Amino acid sequence: MYDTIIIGCGPAGMTAAIYLLRQGKKVLILEKETIGGQISSSPLVSNYPGFISISGSELSNNMFEQVSNLGADFELEEVLKIEDGNIKKVITNYNTYETKTIIIATGCKYRLIGLDKEIDLIGKGIHFCVSCDGAFFKDKKVAVIGGGNSAVINALSLSEICKEVIVIQNLEDLTSEKSLALKLKSKNNVSIITNSVVTKLIEDGTLKGIEINNDKIINIDGMFISIGMIPQNNFIKDLIKLDKNNYVDSIDCKTNIDGIFVAGDLRTKPYRQVTTAVNDGTIAANLVLEYLK
Amino acid sequence: MYDTIIIGCGPAGMTAAIYLLRQGKKVLILEKETIGGQISSSPLVSNYPGFISISGSELSNNMFEQVSNLGADFELEEVLKIEDGNIKKVITNYNTYETKTIIIATGCKYRLIGLDKEIDLIGKGIHFCVSCDGAFFKDKKVAVIGGGNSAVINALSLSEICKEVIVIQNLEDLTSEKSLALKLKSKNNVSIITNSVVTKLIEDGTLKGIEINNDKIINIDGMFISIGMIPQNNFIKDLIKLDKNNYVDSIDCKTNIDGIFVAGDLRTKPYRQVTTAVNDGTIAANLVLEYLK
Repeated sequence: MYDTIIIGCGPAGMTAAIYLLRQGKKVLILEKETIGGQISSSPLVSNYPGFISISGSELSNNMFEQVSNLGADFELEEVLKIEDGNIKKVITNYNTYETKTIIIATGCKYRLIGLDKEIDLIGKGIHFCVSCDGAFFKDKKVAVIGGGNSAVINALSLSEICKEVIVIQNLEDLTSEKSLALKLKSKNNVSIITNSVVTKLIEDGTLKGIEINNDKIINIDGMFISIGMIPQNNFIKDLIKLDKNNYVDSIDCKTNIDGIFVAGDLRTKPYRQVTTAVNDGTIAANLVLEYLK
Repeated sequence: MYDTIIIGCGPAGMTAAIYLLRQGKKVLILEKETIGGQISSSPLVSNYPGFISISGSELSNNMFEQVSNLGADFELEEVLKIEDGNIKKVITNYNTYETKTIIIATGCKYRLIGLDKEIDLIGKGIHFCVSCDGAFFKDKKVAVIGGGNSAVINALSLSEICKEVIVIQNLEDLTSEKSLALKLKSKNNVSIITNSVVTKLIEDGTLKGIEINNDKIINIDGMFISIGMIPQNNFIKDLIKLDKNNYVDSIDCKTNIDGIFVAGDLRTKPYRQVTTAVNDGTIAANLVLEYLK
């Protein structure tokens, strides 16, 4: 019987583990894929306070060493289902575990275009988070893929740093809020290509350019894909209340179920960053401690 | 004219600076005392994800190097007053600065007893934050000074880690919520000494014991002072809406004044940690970016 099972071994989950283990609690962390989660694929993290810059994998490994030293149990298993009750059950592809509380910290993934080599180029010219990686493209030429609010906000931010920003939208026009779209269209260093999709990545190990509509090739230094995120919520859909975008609807890291908490990118929140994930992990851990008392 | 003036150079303020500087904004950080704020006096930080353990001063210095490298202006000046307006003014003991936005991140300080050597022993047997430093006293004997909610919650947490916990309260009884007080009184390894004050610290460079009511000496390994915090809000009292405990009343890092934001321990929040401070810094910086657009 665990005091807490933490589902997801990214910064949110590992922070919760640190706080709980230091209070002597018995903790199991379950992760289906990669220690560190999304941040582990970032080649350079320059906005996590305390490290001038560090690779995402090194930051993840540091955190994992921290929780391992403190005595966390860890299993590389996928959670298929959780069952509520005075004793809660976590059912994975290999085992069923019993626990007093659960912290859900599975985060979300960026939606990909689906191109050949796309995954290999993440961090090597293909990026998602402008406030994380935008600064690496100062005075350079970048593309933003998408036309919704996130894409337009990303393009606006990049337009203040980059020499040139090309927005590639598959529909007839931008679908963001009108005021944002108008502001973007007023920028001298932004061009918007509508009715267009990226059909090929030009690369030599790092991204060099993109082919549009099986035709035109555009040379770029980097590309920010902004076509949405996929909350990793499959195993909780029946039990946990989600918001209209399928994130866990919570402003305080509590869920609709007593003793089940949420932390990190899977939660409804305005900014998804390592800094905001470690905040959530701290809050969820403290809520667990209060619940266990 | 600055894009932002950040008042307070702790983790919250420095995180905000990192996010704003990486977006090309002109930032001034003002600090009246110590780079790093409260965390700088912590000898060992073991709950900030990414560092297995690091001294508070080293963590602070790392963050300061990060903001300095990014080009922050920094002045060691005390802010006496801020004036709202389309252009805002920050008036210090030496200068008046103009800025488009302000982030208030001055935090708060733990209230001290006022004993000889008390300040020198901080981190050397005298502590404040149980979720930060409690784990260092596993199976040891500690005192908690105070009898309100924080003191009783701290004593309850310590009772699960430590061999023995002695609560010293100056009043006739605990003043915490009754349910908490009852729970504490039911603990076998907790004793509560009422109508008592600490009158002397026994030390040899680290704390060894305390003298109670100018009489009895109790040997202890550590002491957690839980007699309240002092929000660092003198310069904003006329302008910014505070809650009943004199913290800035904000759940989202916005204040009652457009373009003035709050981050870190000075904000109304349940858990005051480095992890929650860097969260606030991130949010406040993003709010500044949105405001400047």
